[in-house]
Amino acid sequence: MKKLLVILFLSPLAGYAQEVPDSTFIRQISDDVLRNGRAYDLLRELTKKIGARLSGSPQFARAVQWGEQSMRTLKPDTVFLQSCMLPHWVRGGEDKAEVVAIGNKKQLRSLNVLALGNSLGSGSKGVTGQVLAVADFDELEQRRSEVKGKIVYYNAAFNPTNLRPGKSYGETGIYRRIGASRAAKYGAVAILIRSLTEATDNHPHTGVMAYNDSFPKIPAAALGNRDADYLWNVARQGAPVSVKLTTNGKLLPDTPGHNVIAELRPNTASNEYITIGGHLDSWDVNEGAHDDGTGVVQTMEVLRVFKALGYTPRHNIRFVLFANEENGSRGSAKYMEEAKARGEKHLFALESDAGGFTPRGFGFTAPADVLTKMQPWVELLKPYGVYELTAGGGGADIAPLNTAFGTVLAGFQPDGQRYFDLHHAKTDVFEAVNKRELLLGAINMAALIYLVDKHGL
Amino acid sequence: MKKLLVILFLSPLAGYAQEVPDSTFIRQISDDVLRNGRAYDLLRELTKKIGARLSGSPQFARAVQWGEQSMRTLKPDTVFLQSCMLPHWVRGGEDKAEVVAIGNKKQLRSLNVLALGNSLGSGSKGVTGQVLAVADFDELEQRRSEVKGKIVYYNAAFNPTNLRPGKSYGETGIYRRIGASRAAKYGAVAILIRSLTEATDNHPHTGVMAYNDSFPKIPAAALGNRDADYLWNVARQGAPVSVKLTTNGKLLPDTPGHNVIAELRPNTASNEYITIGGHLDSWDVNEGAHDDGTGVVQTMEVLRVFKALGYTPRHNIRFVLFANEENGSRGSAKYMEEAKARGEKHLFALESDAGGFTPRGFGFTAPADVLTKMQPWVELLKPYGVYELTAGGGGADIAPLNTAFGTVLAGFQPDGQRYFDLHHAKTDVFEAVNKRELLLGAINMAALIYLVDKHGL
Repeated sequence: MKKLLVILFLSPLAGYAQEVPDSTFIRQISDDVLRNGRAYDLLRELTKKIGARLSGSPQFARAVQWGEQSMRTLKPDTVFLQSCMLPHWVRGGEDKAEVVAIGNKKQLRSLNVLALGNSLGSGSKGVTGQVLAVADFDELEQRRSEVKGKIVYYNAAFNPTNLRPGKSYGETGIYRRIGASRAAKYGAVAILIRSLTEATDNHPHTGVMAYNDSFPKIPAAALGNRDADYLWNVARQGAPVSVKLTTNGKLLPDTPGHNVIAELRPNTASNEYITIGGHLDSWDVNEGAHDDGTGVVQTMEVLRVFKALGYTPRHNIRFVLFANEENGSRGSAKYMEEAKARGEKHLFALESDAGGFTPRGFGFTAPADVLTKMQPWVELLKPYGVYELTAGGGGADIAPLNTAFGTVLAGFQPDGQRYFDLHHAKTDVFEAVNKRELLLGAINMAALIYLVDKHGL
Repeated sequence: MKKLLVILFLSPLAGYAQEVPDSTFIRQISDDVLRNGRAYDLLRELTKKIGARLSGSPQFARAVQWGEQSMRTLKPDTVFLQSCMLPHWVRGGEDKAEVVAIGNKKQLRSLNVLALGNSLGSGSKGVTGQVLAVADFDELEQRRSEVKGKIVYYNAAFNPTNLRPGKSYGETGIYRRIGASRAAKYGAVAILIRSLTEATDNHPHTGVMAYNDSFPKIPAAALGNRDADYLWNVARQGAPVSVKLTTNGKLLPDTPGHNVIAELRPNTASNEYITIGGHLDSWDVNEGAHDDGTGVVQTMEVLRVFKALGYTPRHNIRFVLFANEENGSRGSAKYMEEAKARGEKHLFALESDAGGFTPRGFGFTAPADVLTKMQPWVELLKPYGVYELTAGGGGADIAPLNTAFGTVLAGFQPDGQRYFDLHHAKTDVFEAVNKRELLLGAINMAALIYLVDKHGL
């Protein structure tokens, strides 16, 4: 009897919820998320019970289990796993670097260092070489005759006058991604980079790199930036500086892994899909809290609140925890391939992979007229902190959908000032996430998905 | 010769700087602050070398010395101190609370607690009483016959659905400010409140209270909110809960103190003033980083960058580090009185006292037409994170100027989601401040002062 009453009470409400003005429904989303949101507790579980979860690791497999089970508790129409083979890079041990000599003077000063993801280790004896410190690739080219046998250090730093640190990451990231082979081409024995951060601390930041198969695969690592300052200073003073670098990276055979997918379905069967997601994998040196635990739990929060408010979508909505964003993008490739194989129509995809900070906007990969049509939604989102819907944006995991189907993409854009302080460093932990900021992100994501689902594009 | 060249070089630049388009000059402000800003280092000094600096304390006197010396290094036209007498409350020892009994069962569970500022201590023996846990003042009134001899606990909590936590602070702060006398009126022996925060941790938050002289001055303290949850749960289960509270607060005789003031002057003498400031005092339990070290160093940063860019204002600009915002407002009263005595005209005043977080807007106390006139400035500030100039805002230290002269007031509004996590708690430390967020605040403050100075109101 009690159950029947609940059903009678909920059903009209659910219908009602879909007929109220958009502003009212979004306020209902907000009130429910701020009162009953589970994202923060889910994030605590993911970061503290599982922690680091690099693709291929046993922890990633545990994260998949956790994701599947947690999604099921939210009672979507279905939950399923999508299998794919994942790269399996392991750090293999503690990364070490030390200055062993400056001129004739023996020095033993250790440097904070992390091997770059996918880089191969020096072997246990390490690699020792004189440091050639260059500002950038231009200087490397000018001094290419000096490179042989040396450890090249790239001093390229974030430009502090860029108002969005993401721009600096875009400009400077190339040293991490391809700096090793550029130096190996001229005979370098290893490279070091300045970490991709403006943090005032000395924690090194890892992240993916790739080798050009034409050149030797030399060790590559990032320095903490106070040590980067030090090395740049001493190396530019004239006396030769020698450094010993020990890294242990290995690429093991691919391992099976999964995307975790939940689905909410419309009352009438549809072949049109809206995707919302974040990536479940993280680097191996932290808890993957802002990168991208927050995107994962915000995705789950959107599912939770839609169910809590009895929202029945007009399109299929997929809630996706992607595998392997950090070092291979195999999960996102698989998601797109399956969609293609099944002949699905993918209208829209939203990713949260820029941290769980206070909301500022959404960035879109969309035709101009679609973006124009969405502008009135800004007024609906403003109370929750999103002040702009702008051109440019999306996410690594949803990008293949645009390539394959022309799917409109959106990337959640939280405030970006603090992200690179902890991005890929050991400081990216649960404690760095603020509960309200995290939930406000989820509110705006739910609101945007609701608006796209209800009004189309 | 070298000096002469510098002068010849700087003078035309200074002239140029004031003739370039506003967007260009603001970009120059931004570039210089992000490259050469000193606010973060100044904040480190203030928080780490001086630390807590409650009005009346020796540390506050040291902060005045530091402020004066630091301002002088920035080479304004003048620096002076403005004397005033400050209240001198001391915590007097460690605050303690423990549950001593639940029903017939003896319990010894300690509770995290901080006496409220200006409250008087229990004496070393503490005060023990049965807890009367009430939701709010309404319930207190309904149950006033039960209050005598009890320790009243107010459970009033921030409403999580308020989108701006500042609104919750406004709604709930009354329990801290006047809750003691409201309970003492009915014979309570002490009060406890839930801390004014949504933080997920258990640190108690202090803050100012005041007694109504008609009633006994009973001890008053804030609980950490996990202990507040606990106390509310056990106290509402029926069995009487007894708590022992020990606080040691004392109000000592007033002590001399100072506002620290620097001034930039126009080429032609003027009696018109623009004020920018923050408050130098802090609570005694933390480093006063966000409250209000950041406002202090942002104020100094605006002075620094104006000097660095050779900006000569049209009005007198006063850079003020106010005394005694937290528990008496004597510094701000003095500033207004002196202005009145000297017949100064105060056009505009801007305060930063809402934390050093990422910028979102400015709030104004201004006639509607003034606010309308300023709206086009939003486009100039947007690149730096300020997206709105709205009605409502100012600051406790500049409010007397509006009352006395009708001065237009502005309050810098950084993102407010994290502020109350650490506000008046021991977690308000240097490490909680992000360098870029801090500097972006200073950029927007400098830009607004520049626009008001150049274009008037």
